[in-house]
Amino acid sequence: MPKRLVVIGGTAAGLSAATKAKRIIPELEVTVFEKTGYTSYGSCGLPYFVGGMIESADDLVELDAAALSQKRGITANVRHEVTSIDRLAKEVHVKSLADSAAFTAPYDQLVIATGALPVTPNIPGIHAEGVHFLRTVEDGIALRARAEKTKSAVIIGGGLIGLEVAEQLALTGCVVTVLEAMPRFLPHLDESFSGAVRAAMEQNGVAVHTCAAVNEIAESGGAVRGVRTGGGECFPADLVLVSVGVRPNSALAEQAGLETGFRGGIVTNRHMQTSDPSIWACGDCVQMYHLLTGQPCYVPAGTTANKQGKVAGVNIAGGHAAFDGVLASQVTEVFGLVAASTGLSVQQAADAGYAPATAAITKRDRASYYPGGSDNRLMLVFDRNSGVLLGAQGIGGKSVAGRVNVLVTAITCGMTVEQLGALDLVYAPPVAPVYDPILIAAAQAAKQVKPSNPPH
Amino acid sequence: MPKRLVVIGGTAAGLSAATKAKRIIPELEVTVFEKTGYTSYGSCGLPYFVGGMIESADDLVELDAAALSQKRGITANVRHEVTSIDRLAKEVHVKSLADSAAFTAPYDQLVIATGALPVTPNIPGIHAEGVHFLRTVEDGIALRARAEKTKSAVIIGGGLIGLEVAEQLALTGCVVTVLEAMPRFLPHLDESFSGAVRAAMEQNGVAVHTCAAVNEIAESGGAVRGVRTGGGECFPADLVLVSVGVRPNSALAEQAGLETGFRGGIVTNRHMQTSDPSIWACGDCVQMYHLLTGQPCYVPAGTTANKQGKVAGVNIAGGHAAFDGVLASQVTEVFGLVAASTGLSVQQAADAGYAPATAAITKRDRASYYPGGSDNRLMLVFDRNSGVLLGAQGIGGKSVAGRVNVLVTAITCGMTVEQLGALDLVYAPPVAPVYDPILIAAAQAAKQVKPSNPPH
Repeated sequence: MPKRLVVIGGTAAGLSAATKAKRIIPELEVTVFEKTGYTSYGSCGLPYFVGGMIESADDLVELDAAALSQKRGITANVRHEVTSIDRLAKEVHVKSLADSAAFTAPYDQLVIATGALPVTPNIPGIHAEGVHFLRTVEDGIALRARAEKTKSAVIIGGGLIGLEVAEQLALTGCVVTVLEAMPRFLPHLDESFSGAVRAAMEQNGVAVHTCAAVNEIAESGGAVRGVRTGGGECFPADLVLVSVGVRPNSALAEQAGLETGFRGGIVTNRHMQTSDPSIWACGDCVQMYHLLTGQPCYVPAGTTANKQGKVAGVNIAGGHAAFDGVLASQVTEVFGLVAASTGLSVQQAADAGYAPATAAITKRDRASYYPGGSDNRLMLVFDRNSGVLLGAQGIGGKSVAGRVNVLVTAITCGMTVEQLGALDLVYAPPVAPVYDPILIAAAQAAKQVKPSNPPH
Repeated sequence: MPKRLVVIGGTAAGLSAATKAKRIIPELEVTVFEKTGYTSYGSCGLPYFVGGMIESADDLVELDAAALSQKRGITANVRHEVTSIDRLAKEVHVKSLADSAAFTAPYDQLVIATGALPVTPNIPGIHAEGVHFLRTVEDGIALRARAEKTKSAVIIGGGLIGLEVAEQLALTGCVVTVLEAMPRFLPHLDESFSGAVRAAMEQNGVAVHTCAAVNEIAESGGAVRGVRTGGGECFPADLVLVSVGVRPNSALAEQAGLETGFRGGIVTNRHMQTSDPSIWACGDCVQMYHLLTGQPCYVPAGTTANKQGKVAGVNIAGGHAAFDGVLASQVTEVFGLVAASTGLSVQQAADAGYAPATAAITKRDRASYYPGGSDNRLMLVFDRNSGVLLGAQGIGGKSVAGRVNVLVTAITCGMTVEQLGALDLVYAPPVAPVYDPILIAAAQAAKQVKPSNPPH
């Protein structure tokens, strides 16, 4: 039975592991070291704090150090950086960022939950004043302070966080330009879906430029003045958000000789155990596996972090739990348009050896005669030989999220599109049409599946 | 290859069968006889027509006879009653309600899709002027005309249609009382769920009385004046809606010697074929089977009717399709509160030999720090030995429907609550909390499942 659990990172993953282990073994001594000043914050909420929709940064924090101590018996030390792991001595070296004091903390079991770091492109001017990243609460506070005195902003990178911040800044009256290096943004979505998101951005006054690789951030007196692209265009800006993706924060694990893999993520088994049996890792710092292909992937998400943390906690406490993989489910809402996706895209399905086909439909989300509602556009990706559902995308009103979650469930269970079309989904005019968009998409898909022998 | 297909009933089921068969065999001669003046209407929409939210009765009709002829090549005869089926001669006897002309129509294959009839309780005064039923478009037109000159209405029966009409009439300013004979209404829901629906009705000015069996409808000069209950109370009313359930409209089938079963529903195999191989039946007139128990049941629904009709149509055209059963999925919205359910209740699960347990949680449907949203209350019914999910109920904002549909999918696939808790559901602050209510309910449930051997 372990006596001392040390957790590196007060992230969702780290605190899930800590909480679960402590609940199972109440006498376990649990100590968390968190480099930033905040524990347990949801980084998905940061765009809404930046735009002022969420007033206080404290609202982003579900459990601060005091609450962790009082409610869960967990000692959480913020502004404490773990500088190295001594696997032989089973201790971590810690530095207090407040007073630079250094000390060591012994462990029986160790959890690495250091999360992700923003990717920092190597371009001139990246360190100018007014160039921001958005990952921690501190990042959010700094970005919001800058945004409040900003008239024009450039977002480098049309990923989910970039688009969400673009929306939030535009809602405050700021002139916002999004620059995406690739020919289109949100490449995990079908072109018609990412195109609809782009249209929503543009209709709401956000300028969007694709094939717009950034060459240089222009500065004057150390402060940002604009962004120059490879095409030679210059976009003036008082504020630049660099949002070109994140990578696993795995340096500490690597230095300690733990195995790392895809994109540098810490390699674990399905029990979230690293190559050192006393060390566990979970959340945005680990390599993940795709539930359908079994291949390594990297899809950082708070939901996954929580699940992996719980699995680690159970196993640390001597139980048996496993995390099998992700479907890469994602959703965002910009200007009232919800876009969600899960599973494999057509290209990913082809790469994985399937014979992918698609069916796409657009349908209102309630009975035609019932007022209100909005369109749902759904696309299914499936194998044309077996009919097995492999992926799904949806765009439209809020009800899209629930429909894509039905498809998450169907994919997880290995349903065919024919089985999908037989689902006894709920129906009443205010909440759905009698032929639910899911059933219509499934019927379209079923027509393309190669006939098998009759099931008589 | 059949040449002549006759369909009795221009219902959703009948037209689905007709359309599907005609699409597969374009030269098939398809004739539909519908007793009312309307084909292809959604009776679920009738409450919203009665209340005036849907302006014209024509809006309830998806395809009228002209459209059926032009778009689908189907001859639909409204106001034509089939009076008997001659199985030996393979023809039906038809009466035109316009001119009482009688004729026979020969068939190679016959579909019975006569739908359901309202249950008519045997109480004095039931035939008085101002006493209404609600099943056909004509019923809706008559009820709306009466409602427009009504100040006070009594609804006998607290089922879904009764509650929806109560809501709609209350919204027009009418004083509405619902009388339910049983101790509570919506008995397929857990008491806390049906209680929440009752509270919503009462908060919006609808009087609700349970244990209120009706003894007599009071009339004066042939017109309704009020409703008297067994308790001796009299509720004054200018309008009475009798909404105490429906039953399969199977008299014609029975007279023709076809096998009928549960509640009089026409018995079919899973190909929707009756005991006569040339006769098919689908929709609200047939006996259904529960997907989990395999036991006969009767849960009339437009969604099921459409699916069964399609299955019948495929098989009539020589294909192979099957309808496996229903989960009894239902949803309604009254005064902005959505209540949905699927699968087995605790009692039904116990009756079917399971060891049922429940887990119920209430949780907001978006991130705690994100403005707006509403509570979702979810209850899972599962087997405590195997952990297999058996039923689910949800109540709250509109997002409840999507969540219950996830649970429909999980139940259909035989998922355990532990597997449910591992689903990679989509997450973003505007559409869900990081721990989706489904995952929280699943975790609560998993704690009650008897531990099995570790899955190592």
